[in-house]
Amino acid sequence: MEKSEATTIEIGETSRERKGKAPLLGAAENARAAGYKRGVAVFDLILRVSSVAAALAATITMGTAEQTLPFFTQFFQFQASYDDLPTFTFFVIAMSIATGYLVLSLPVSVVCIARPLVRGPRLLLILCDTLTLTLTTSAAAASAAIVYLAHNGNSDANWLAICQQFTDFCQRISGAVVASFIAVALIIFLVVLSALALRKH
Amino acid sequence: MEKSEATTIEIGETSRERKGKAPLLGAAENARAAGYKRGVAVFDLILRVSSVAAALAATITMGTAEQTLPFFTQFFQFQASYDDLPTFTFFVIAMSIATGYLVLSLPVSVVCIARPLVRGPRLLLILCDTLTLTLTTSAAAASAAIVYLAHNGNSDANWLAICQQFTDFCQRISGAVVASFIAVALIIFLVVLSALALRKH
Repeated sequence: MEKSEATTIEIGETSRERKGKAPLLGAAENARAAGYKRGVAVFDLILRVSSVAAALAATITMGTAEQTLPFFTQFFQFQASYDDLPTFTFFVIAMSIATGYLVLSLPVSVVCIARPLVRGPRLLLILCDTLTLTLTTSAAAASAAIVYLAHNGNSDANWLAICQQFTDFCQRISGAVVASFIAVALIIFLVVLSALALRKH
Repeated sequence: MEKSEATTIEIGETSRERKGKAPLLGAAENARAAGYKRGVAVFDLILRVSSVAAALAATITMGTAEQTLPFFTQFFQFQASYDDLPTFTFFVIAMSIATGYLVLSLPVSVVCIARPLVRGPRLLLILCDTLTLTLTTSAAAASAAIVYLAHNGNSDANWLAICQQFTDFCQRISGAVVASFIAVALIIFLVVLSALALRKH
């Protein structure tokens, strides 16, 4: 109801305003709110495109991370790839979902630029962004814990660092984790921006 | 400005309404919006108290997790505690901060019940809740990755499962991770609720 009302006011602004059918806000205040919200929506779109880039980079970097060591025994060849560790498999799946969602949300963000006073799309974005934030953060944090272990090992649990052997692989997965944390920071800004846009009339 | 205006309208509702000093919203619509927002705020307070309980339980369970095995050699006693693993230390610190924030946010939530039309506190809550959500999720996910490793080990990286020896310790840390994920779910609901409360007038 809220949504359709706002749409009506915005579309029929010029004709209805004179007939006194939009008494909630004055025309000037309405235009100012629309300008503010449109500015926020443009910034939202820019951030969203950047976060798509970061999430995609994280997915691809992790998904293509593998290394085969140049020596092998009769029975065994030393090889590391992301799917040796379940956490990294989760990382690739979660970041793929996040990338997909962020790409799909681009048209909704464009709708928010075209119709800045409509609140439905904005509310949809903030809800889905919050869920994506959780998904991305969990993937990034879980992988960061494992990457830390791969670099440093843990003497108490008797887990040895594997990065002395698999240097290229470790650089790859570290890069993917850094990219995913950049995506997390951008999505936090997206949620904050949506909250700011919802606040004003 | 937005905030002070809303306060004035709410406090002086009965006297000013008759003089036509609150032209933005009709009295009935205003009262309905206040009722809706007050309901949301009460639900917010209940969720917040639950999330304090969950976060506190997670912190204490992890912080007190230690186990000494009943056998030892001449040089070595087998002992596990949460600060053997940096991830669990991060977990305890992050969950303590989250618990502290959630306790401090309770008065703000009470203000939102008393003054449902004021938007300042609500916006403050949604911003801080989003940051707390990220902190809690990263602690929960990183610890979950390590707990999985402690239970199952990883043959590719040659990391052995330590839960065969330290059963009590592993039950403790698994419980803490479950409690932290419950806290994460509750904080997601808090953010969603705040967004819903911001949407309506």
